[in-house]
Amino acid sequence: MSKLRVESFTISLDGFGAGPDQDIDNPLGVGGTSLHAWAMSTRTFQKNLFGSDGGVAGIDEDFAARGFRNIGAWILGRNMFGPVRGLWPDESWRGWWGDNPVYHGPVFVLTNYARAPLVMEGGTTFHFVTEGIVAALAHAREAAEGKDVRLGGGVNIIQQFLRQRLIDEMHIAIAPVLLGAGERLFDGVNLPALGYACTGRESSPLATHVVLTRQ
Amino acid sequence: MSKLRVESFTISLDGFGAGPDQDIDNPLGVGGTSLHAWAMSTRTFQKNLFGSDGGVAGIDEDFAARGFRNIGAWILGRNMFGPVRGLWPDESWRGWWGDNPVYHGPVFVLTNYARAPLVMEGGTTFHFVTEGIVAALAHAREAAEGKDVRLGGGVNIIQQFLRQRLIDEMHIAIAPVLLGAGERLFDGVNLPALGYACTGRESSPLATHVVLTRQ
Repeated sequence: MSKLRVESFTISLDGFGAGPDQDIDNPLGVGGTSLHAWAMSTRTFQKNLFGSDGGVAGIDEDFAARGFRNIGAWILGRNMFGPVRGLWPDESWRGWWGDNPVYHGPVFVLTNYARAPLVMEGGTTFHFVTEGIVAALAHAREAAEGKDVRLGGGVNIIQQFLRQRLIDEMHIAIAPVLLGAGERLFDGVNLPALGYACTGRESSPLATHVVLTRQ
Repeated sequence: MSKLRVESFTISLDGFGAGPDQDIDNPLGVGGTSLHAWAMSTRTFQKNLFGSDGGVAGIDEDFAARGFRNIGAWILGRNMFGPVRGLWPDESWRGWWGDNPVYHGPVFVLTNYARAPLVMEGGTTFHFVTEGIVAALAHAREAAEGKDVRLGGGVNIIQQFLRQRLIDEMHIAIAPVLLGAGERLFDGVNLPALGYACTGRESSPLATHVVLTRQ
């Protein structure tokens, strides 16, 4: 069975998955980029984000790499796709990632506002889903053709999927930074009551990696 | 200058410093004891809690041991002292720790209800302070005679001290467990805005240890 997975999602020591006040200059909210030092160190992210041959191997790389393994489709919340809120004023916003986004496959963007699919270079197509999370998951599962679906975030979308017990597995990284404000990943989500347990843990100098699995 | 320190305070992956529903059978709330596997493994806790020569050395032990170094007095919230709420019905509750508590020095218990000091074996005396956290700190500093003061908790008391920037340093351990409910240590506390930063981090197989310091 195709799984729904969260991968490489990073929170701060005080529990925030993004900083406050996301805008075009702060895609991860103010201070949010400091969460991702571990990811930026890895071969996988260096290659996928920057086309670079840099980055290092190790525990962080192992977790970064597993996040791209056996993924057939992605689901993103609209705020992960961009800073535009409300009705789409036009078709000009095409994501944070340039002409050739990191996804290289079908991406289902949850939004309340319809928009035509957006075909990018490198195999990425953004589909805009207005029917809610269950429909988005059905579309993504079909598009994934037996592979897993990766749920990219953000926080609010992950919480919605968790509360319906739709996520099979989450890899969460805890970075040694404090954000103080923003969106707290586990606010209003009682993980043990929903059937989740911590089933794996490894630590690098830059992050503590944990795997939470639905039992 | 004598510091106010929090030491060996453990939170879950989802941020809780104690489980829900504390009572006489669950001094740390339901599920709360699962937080402390790292501490229970250490020589320091084996010796101080059980008079045992067991326990192991290593990163966990290093953090456990530093928590007892140069401590001249303690401050505890009333719920850490016991499960009794409201007026003291009598003098029969003498703490969770038996006749010879782990503190071996003056302990200032914050409460709204006056009670005579309680002299225990091994050098521990519980003083009950009804004048609030600033007064408790002044009493503890005086009693500590130049040594540091350790703030034991619980969550609510730590939050009160943090909001007034009275804590100099906190050692927090993050255990690989989920509690789902209880008291979240950093709820309503914006650490960076209060001037705190993560200044140290080490990880053992049982916990991630971080040090937060007021800048």
